[in-house]
Amino acid sequence: MTNFKQFIDAQVPKIENELYHQVGKIEAPEQLKDSMLYSLKAGGKRIRPLFVLAVCEMFNNKQQEAYTIGAAVEMIHTYSLIHDDLPSMDNDDLRRGKPTNHKVYGEALATLAGDALNTLCFGLLARMENVPAEIRLELINLMSIAAGAEGMVGGQVLDMDGESRQLNLAELENVHVNKTGALLRFSIESGAVLSNAEKDQRDALVEYAHHVGLAFQIQDDILDILGTSEQLGKTAGKDIESNKSTYPALLTLEGAGQKLSEHYELALAALSKIQLDTTLLREITEYIVHRNH
Amino acid sequence: MTNFKQFIDAQVPKIENELYHQVGKIEAPEQLKDSMLYSLKAGGKRIRPLFVLAVCEMFNNKQQEAYTIGAAVEMIHTYSLIHDDLPSMDNDDLRRGKPTNHKVYGEALATLAGDALNTLCFGLLARMENVPAEIRLELINLMSIAAGAEGMVGGQVLDMDGESRQLNLAELENVHVNKTGALLRFSIESGAVLSNAEKDQRDALVEYAHHVGLAFQIQDDILDILGTSEQLGKTAGKDIESNKSTYPALLTLEGAGQKLSEHYELALAALSKIQLDTTLLREITEYIVHRNH
Repeated sequence: MTNFKQFIDAQVPKIENELYHQVGKIEAPEQLKDSMLYSLKAGGKRIRPLFVLAVCEMFNNKQQEAYTIGAAVEMIHTYSLIHDDLPSMDNDDLRRGKPTNHKVYGEALATLAGDALNTLCFGLLARMENVPAEIRLELINLMSIAAGAEGMVGGQVLDMDGESRQLNLAELENVHVNKTGALLRFSIESGAVLSNAEKDQRDALVEYAHHVGLAFQIQDDILDILGTSEQLGKTAGKDIESNKSTYPALLTLEGAGQKLSEHYELALAALSKIQLDTTLLREITEYIVHRNH
Repeated sequence: MTNFKQFIDAQVPKIENELYHQVGKIEAPEQLKDSMLYSLKAGGKRIRPLFVLAVCEMFNNKQQEAYTIGAAVEMIHTYSLIHDDLPSMDNDDLRRGKPTNHKVYGEALATLAGDALNTLCFGLLARMENVPAEIRLELINLMSIAAGAEGMVGGQVLDMDGESRQLNLAELENVHVNKTGALLRFSIESGAVLSNAEKDQRDALVEYAHHVGLAFQIQDDILDILGTSEQLGKTAGKDIESNKSTYPALLTLEGAGQKLSEHYELALAALSKIQLDTTLLREITEYIVHRNH
């Protein structure tokens, strides 16, 4: 995993610079900016921006705007975490080992910080002056679908449903294809769009995104059972406690592990359709499947 | 006010058709769409889409996309009301004479419906195929600024500040320039952008927007004191009860009325700089100043 580790070490600081720079420069009440930055700075794997950059890297595309797209997608991810953690939603006190946004800034400001991050994302994409207008519009359209009712937000609604009744496997997959999958797909597809990928390359990447997204979620479900709160930076064992529909609950832990392997293989198979150096994406895939947090 | 009344009667149904059509066609969980549509259908004056259309009308611009922009801005306005009404924010049970979104759908779904409307707005603007790409991007950029931390959301944060301490007049004006003014400005400016207005026309409209926006807010503050809950469709007298910073609280009711007249005159003066038929915009201005709900 030398490539991926070097890649992370080199790129994460640049991703975070862009993220903090974009929020730092807006003219807004300080407590609002503080609340937005608090959650952006709480860390996390930055897996979505890393995907944008890894895909651009594969296409040998060095455009600086990859960082802007990465910042935009991380803003959407972060806003979704802030809102998910609210008392009326998952009611989480701990996120990435730190008090959740509303625990520090109160529910009202946390709600507004999430709203502001959601909105800012689209401004960032619209203002990428060196990117052709049609490509910016395609990215904004894809992001609106991925992040909204037809993607992430819709998936969150389906997920809430899954707390009151046992979902079947197709329903559970549908939750994750939307709740976490749609934004991961955007991260991967946006790199292809920015790099003017050919249709078959883009299709293969979208297929890859589908499987790596599900693998990511299944591993999340498994870690909720096997991991500790300390490793995860959030309350472990919450899924069982809340009787949530998860892959292990539906398939047993062993069955979930098998499903994870299937999607891992299918993700790699999709990558093998691309006649470019996919080493980095393979390593990210392996990391996602084997991570312990 | 014959022009304006006819204009409302002709345009509001078309605005609402576009609004419901845009939400109706998305593929998302039914309860989410229901929650989004519930608040969109709760009525309201549709003043923001009417502004988009009135400005286009002044430029003799008949593009259908004016309705799409109107729907987009109404979605942002509606999402802001849903979130503002939440228990952690204003904790309102009544909006436009009906139970607020979270009273019907619960806080979690109300939060998500607001999020989804925020996100959908940008997709609508990005997908206006008959509008030149550069104009779509300019509208998306303007909307992101108007609706986000630098505009509406920032204004909401300043407004919350004003509940814990007495603001001075400059601070109060700053609240409203952002909280309600920014989106009204977008409504007016977007009509100019879509119509390829000349710079001096656009500048005059932005100046008009500034004053009509403040007039709108001052009248809102006055109505909170003089109106009944039945007229307003929301709980009257809430500002006094919550010790909120308002124009009447700061200037007395008479002083607020005088301030309203000043902004009314300045709004009309800005319009008079435009060498086009501004009858409709003058009538809207008069309506805003004299409305009783």
